[in-house]
Amino acid sequence: MRKYNIAVVGASGMVGNMMRTVLEERKLPIDNIYFMASSRSAGKTITFMGQDYIIEELTENSFDKHIDIALFSAGGETSKIFSPIAAAKGCIVIDNSSAWRMDPEVPLVVPEVNPEDVEWNKGIIANPNCSTIQAVVALKPLYDAYGIKRIIYTTFQAVSGAGMKGYKDLENGIKGIAPEKFPYPIAENVLPHIDVFSEDGYTKEEIKMVNETRKIMHDDNLRITATTVRVPVFNSHSESINVELGKPFEISDVVKILTDAPGIIVEDDVANNIYPMPINASGKDETFVGRIRPDRSVENGLNLWVVADNIRKGAATNAVQIAEVLIARGTIK
Amino acid sequence: MRKYNIAVVGASGMVGNMMRTVLEERKLPIDNIYFMASSRSAGKTITFMGQDYIIEELTENSFDKHIDIALFSAGGETSKIFSPIAAAKGCIVIDNSSAWRMDPEVPLVVPEVNPEDVEWNKGIIANPNCSTIQAVVALKPLYDAYGIKRIIYTTFQAVSGAGMKGYKDLENGIKGIAPEKFPYPIAENVLPHIDVFSEDGYTKEEIKMVNETRKIMHDDNLRITATTVRVPVFNSHSESINVELGKPFEISDVVKILTDAPGIIVEDDVANNIYPMPINASGKDETFVGRIRPDRSVENGLNLWVVADNIRKGAATNAVQIAEVLIARGTIK
Repeated sequence: MRKYNIAVVGASGMVGNMMRTVLEERKLPIDNIYFMASSRSAGKTITFMGQDYIIEELTENSFDKHIDIALFSAGGETSKIFSPIAAAKGCIVIDNSSAWRMDPEVPLVVPEVNPEDVEWNKGIIANPNCSTIQAVVALKPLYDAYGIKRIIYTTFQAVSGAGMKGYKDLENGIKGIAPEKFPYPIAENVLPHIDVFSEDGYTKEEIKMVNETRKIMHDDNLRITATTVRVPVFNSHSESINVELGKPFEISDVVKILTDAPGIIVEDDVANNIYPMPINASGKDETFVGRIRPDRSVENGLNLWVVADNIRKGAATNAVQIAEVLIARGTIK
Repeated sequence: MRKYNIAVVGASGMVGNMMRTVLEERKLPIDNIYFMASSRSAGKTITFMGQDYIIEELTENSFDKHIDIALFSAGGETSKIFSPIAAAKGCIVIDNSSAWRMDPEVPLVVPEVNPEDVEWNKGIIANPNCSTIQAVVALKPLYDAYGIKRIIYTTFQAVSGAGMKGYKDLENGIKGIAPEKFPYPIAENVLPHIDVFSEDGYTKEEIKMVNETRKIMHDDNLRITATTVRVPVFNSHSESINVELGKPFEISDVVKILTDAPGIIVEDDVANNIYPMPINASGKDETFVGRIRPDRSVENGLNLWVVADNIRKGAATNAVQIAEVLIARGTIK
């Protein structure tokens, strides 16, 4: 069996660390693996499959050695500089930042939804925003079965989505220490504010959910609105999703379609208090869907509650799954 | 000036205590005041306007003395028994439980929205559910100006809404102690589950928001759906409200209408990170509205973010305001 040379760029961050874990768990056919980061983290030792590795400094020459796939989680600015360099050397970059997501030359991929889009990559594939990934995993099977006319997203997002500094703000906030990452305390509070505000009053996070959902679903006319909110939860995003389907449905059929769909675990037995929650989703790679019920306030309306580990499925796992798709489809030269 | 005899029933609970505070703050024209509770709390001493009072045990004879207004926050079962007894003795009960809210003989009142409904009381006036109160305060001025076709509520509710035991569950949960009130830990988690589930998959809290909004707005055909969620916040509920207005609007007009409306403080300057948050709303009697922005995914769509102190405006303050309306309108015999 062919084995591949893989790099993890941004190896010392929260998502980079999880990429390493997920690569171990999913047993990718790896020949050589390289861990890269900025000069700040370079030189540190990390462990992969029981072996020690030293984090290399990311430079223009980092991709001179043959690398098949580079999983980037190093932020947008670093990705803008180094992803094209890596791609020019024949590497396929799977980038977790928002730098390339809306570039028409770059596929935006969730393996359960649009794996075939990896085929037209030109060296860079974008990993979607965490809150978008779990949403489209839940919505795609319904889109295929019924069509979707309108989506209203309301999110309950964990602090890990803001990286280690966000995580620290909640840890410190519980002890009464002022925040550094967030503009206000997140402990015992909720912030209707994720990423920066744009001029139309929406945050970039909200705009990402709208645009990325359309791109992944290949439907530029999908009507979507979003309100994204930070809650004092360490890990796993929850989302209340209100959908207007394209035609009538039986709720039992919706449950069956979701149960049979890839990457979804339906947790929906409210008589026994079974519904998705962050504390149960954390550490898992699947997207959990529950509270599945018709919304009688509109024709073909449906309410869903969708929870997933934003560091795993929302970032690291999805990126590794894209690598698996590339390998399985023989897309790598 | 005429003064009134007032009773607080359920005086030792979280809302009962706040009723006492709000009665002090708002300086109601009180002649005699009585504090009542179950035998468990009877005999305890509490302070009102610098004077000590002993909590009386609530019995069938408690209303034999002349009481003009009784503020009940003693739970549904107690209210079902004692509200009719009090009303029969000529007292007007303002009840904070859900026992009477949907009774067609009982007005359901938010003073900013439908104060005139106090007039047709037959001895009992219901105080709405906390999550409904702040929503209708924000929506009524828009309903009057534009009409409303559809509402989608998504709530972020504080643990104080579940009383002292809910509060304790979050305090303990932060220390790693298992919950007693909630079915799962609320610390570092969110629960898409408030009140009990009904057969159609909605919780009673969600059904309350639908039915109570319609009753308060006097519009049985208003199309509404709700998802109500408990978050690890001690106090003040937040709500993401998506509305389909009845006709086109300018966002500047919406802001002006809300700014001029009674009981509302608009906090909406996202360029300076100004938006409503639980930590700012707690301890205040107003309803805070922000993130006011058009929703382009539907004709005449609007998104709002609404935060209020659920123990004050969502319970105690609203009840005391109803008493003020009764006094101001001369409704008391």
